[in-house]
Amino acid sequence: MKVLSVNAGSSSLKFQMYEMPQEEVLISGVFERIGIDGSFYSLKINGKKIKKEKVLKDHDMAVSVLIDELLANNVVESLEDIKAVGHRVVHGGDKYSDSVVIDDDVLNTIVGLSDLAPLHNPANVIGIKAFFNKIPNAIAVAVFDTAFHQTIEKEEFLSSGPIEWYENHKVRKYSFHGTSHKYITERMKSILNKKEVNLITCHLGNGASISAIKGGQSKDSTMGFTPNAGLIMGTRSGDFDFTIIPYIMEVENKTLEEVLNDLNKKSGLLGISGISSDSRDIEEEFLNNEKNAVLAQNMYVKRIVAYIAKYFVFLKEVDAITFSGGIGENSSITRKMILDELEALNIKVDKVSNEKREDEFLISSKESKVDCYVIKTDEEVMIAKETYDLTK
Amino acid sequence: MKVLSVNAGSSSLKFQMYEMPQEEVLISGVFERIGIDGSFYSLKINGKKIKKEKVLKDHDMAVSVLIDELLANNVVESLEDIKAVGHRVVHGGDKYSDSVVIDDDVLNTIVGLSDLAPLHNPANVIGIKAFFNKIPNAIAVAVFDTAFHQTIEKEEFLSSGPIEWYENHKVRKYSFHGTSHKYITERMKSILNKKEVNLITCHLGNGASISAIKGGQSKDSTMGFTPNAGLIMGTRSGDFDFTIIPYIMEVENKTLEEVLNDLNKKSGLLGISGISSDSRDIEEEFLNNEKNAVLAQNMYVKRIVAYIAKYFVFLKEVDAITFSGGIGENSSITRKMILDELEALNIKVDKVSNEKREDEFLISSKESKVDCYVIKTDEEVMIAKETYDLTK
Repeated sequence: MKVLSVNAGSSSLKFQMYEMPQEEVLISGVFERIGIDGSFYSLKINGKKIKKEKVLKDHDMAVSVLIDELLANNVVESLEDIKAVGHRVVHGGDKYSDSVVIDDDVLNTIVGLSDLAPLHNPANVIGIKAFFNKIPNAIAVAVFDTAFHQTIEKEEFLSSGPIEWYENHKVRKYSFHGTSHKYITERMKSILNKKEVNLITCHLGNGASISAIKGGQSKDSTMGFTPNAGLIMGTRSGDFDFTIIPYIMEVENKTLEEVLNDLNKKSGLLGISGISSDSRDIEEEFLNNEKNAVLAQNMYVKRIVAYIAKYFVFLKEVDAITFSGGIGENSSITRKMILDELEALNIKVDKVSNEKREDEFLISSKESKVDCYVIKTDEEVMIAKETYDLTK
Repeated sequence: MKVLSVNAGSSSLKFQMYEMPQEEVLISGVFERIGIDGSFYSLKINGKKIKKEKVLKDHDMAVSVLIDELLANNVVESLEDIKAVGHRVVHGGDKYSDSVVIDDDVLNTIVGLSDLAPLHNPANVIGIKAFFNKIPNAIAVAVFDTAFHQTIEKEEFLSSGPIEWYENHKVRKYSFHGTSHKYITERMKSILNKKEVNLITCHLGNGASISAIKGGQSKDSTMGFTPNAGLIMGTRSGDFDFTIIPYIMEVENKTLEEVLNDLNKKSGLLGISGISSDSRDIEEEFLNNEKNAVLAQNMYVKRIVAYIAKYFVFLKEVDAITFSGGIGENSSITRKMILDELEALNIKVDKVSNEKREDEFLISSKESKVDCYVIKTDEEVMIAKETYDLTK
């Protein structure tokens, strides 16, 4: 069965088409600058990459072009071949703890949750509608970034503000990256040959979060009411002392909105280093001993270490710590720095294994109290699987 | 030598008079509702408590009354007997890493730091001036809440916002309660008979903070730019996901100032429980299984546990964990809950010792990886000592 996995942004559309249940990628690609001058798309099929410039007025047009390409490249013979489309949806609120087939009610609920994710849900909805318009017979499924974290309990998800804020306005920790943390959890169940896994899953990409997995369920995670909480990220501050906000507004003569924008777009690795939001640049300058890059890299590592410590104690027993995402999968330096700082927990890196380049490998030494793994994440296949499961 | 230890608030004045270096308390007391209707003061001398109603127009008048009482009670024979006055000053910025004799420059600096502590420094200055006016010959010393934390290094004190906020406006973690954490550190050096102590010092009062002490120096602490960071407190949120703030402003139609006020005055134990800001009330209702009291107590404990975990890993080696402050010294239930949650670090409470009522005692079992103590804090005597040392 052919299943599309879709991630729609406000001016972009990423997709993969899978043959399921084999999980074989038939074609993948991304449409960029939709509705903006200079729009284009790129495809990957049979190991070949193709890039084409094309006026893409809106997401509907992008989906039309996508369908034309599927037909032209003989990936499908007709539209009827596309049985299901799985959509990444950022915010499912506390309504969805699983993926769900999208009907009018679900679509309205996703729209209604836009208050909680004003940058993401509206774009996801545009993507959903475009596929409804062009492939009305395909089953549409919403796969929520928040769903896997709905098993987090109240003591962990509640803020320390007035409880009425939760009771009246659902102010709480939602956490995101759920599809990635779920994928890693599933892989670790298989690798450890154990169903009730306790894990600390570190998803370290441009956005980053760590989850505490107990008995295979998410029981805490570092992101919060929005994705800007927890770890230091490329341009996001993550956890930040809110009492600084009114002071900065005054001394810099800024509005609240401007300060919040700074905390989203000009903070984190970029803000501390003044160099770049890209961890590869930071690492390079860190190795050159550039003062603020050293600061940014060390602060980045220490924030991760603090959360691993917290979750290590919270979980009481930990089967494994995992690293995934662009940085987690590729930066052996960052991984080694993190594990070296965990000495007090008797966690030890294996320097040789840590330098490997594979999809899934052990990086801790035999003496380490907890096994540590690198696991390449795959949110797209997770979306395809959840979607496929809902067609059965 | 007779030394006064003074803590001036905007409408209050607490004091202790010591015979130094013996650290003997000669008289202590507090003036309340200064400048407000219904002002009064209470004194404690030779084990007797006295309370008197008295119109106290301003701090100068309170100091006059204080002097009259010292003379009337034969604590001093003349004003000349009061050799030094030590003033608690909340914010010393990054300028003072030690106590200092107050001259005009110092006073101006303390006034200048009012931007960073608008609720506290101006009141401290009023107290300093009142004593200058009435006892001009006594040496005045400022003992800063922030001073002990000036050994915290940049990687720990910097926020993850744009570094210019630090470079241009000194936005950083300052942390408070330094006088208490320093006192505890000094006591532990003596108890452990070791100079380079590594400690996790938990000061749990209505305000609360935890410090990581390495080699006898503060190297991290939970409070931040202001005292509303870190732990859950009586009415303060402590750490709070700042991305909630604009959402609450919108849905509750509140100004930023109102929301920040809620986070200071209507959050923490009070906000979560809806019952009380007093941990004794929360504990009582927790034992009655009242739903929101259970939530508040568990969240309170878990936040503390998370920071102990962080500092345990940060310090790499820990000689002892200490509990002080009203809750730390008196609540055996809270202490036990905290230590029970630290199982993964092989920390174990001794249930019997934990129930003791003494000024300084061990509460961990012999099997515990880290020794845990209750140490009654004494900020007042620390202020007197620092003051006395500067008269030599």
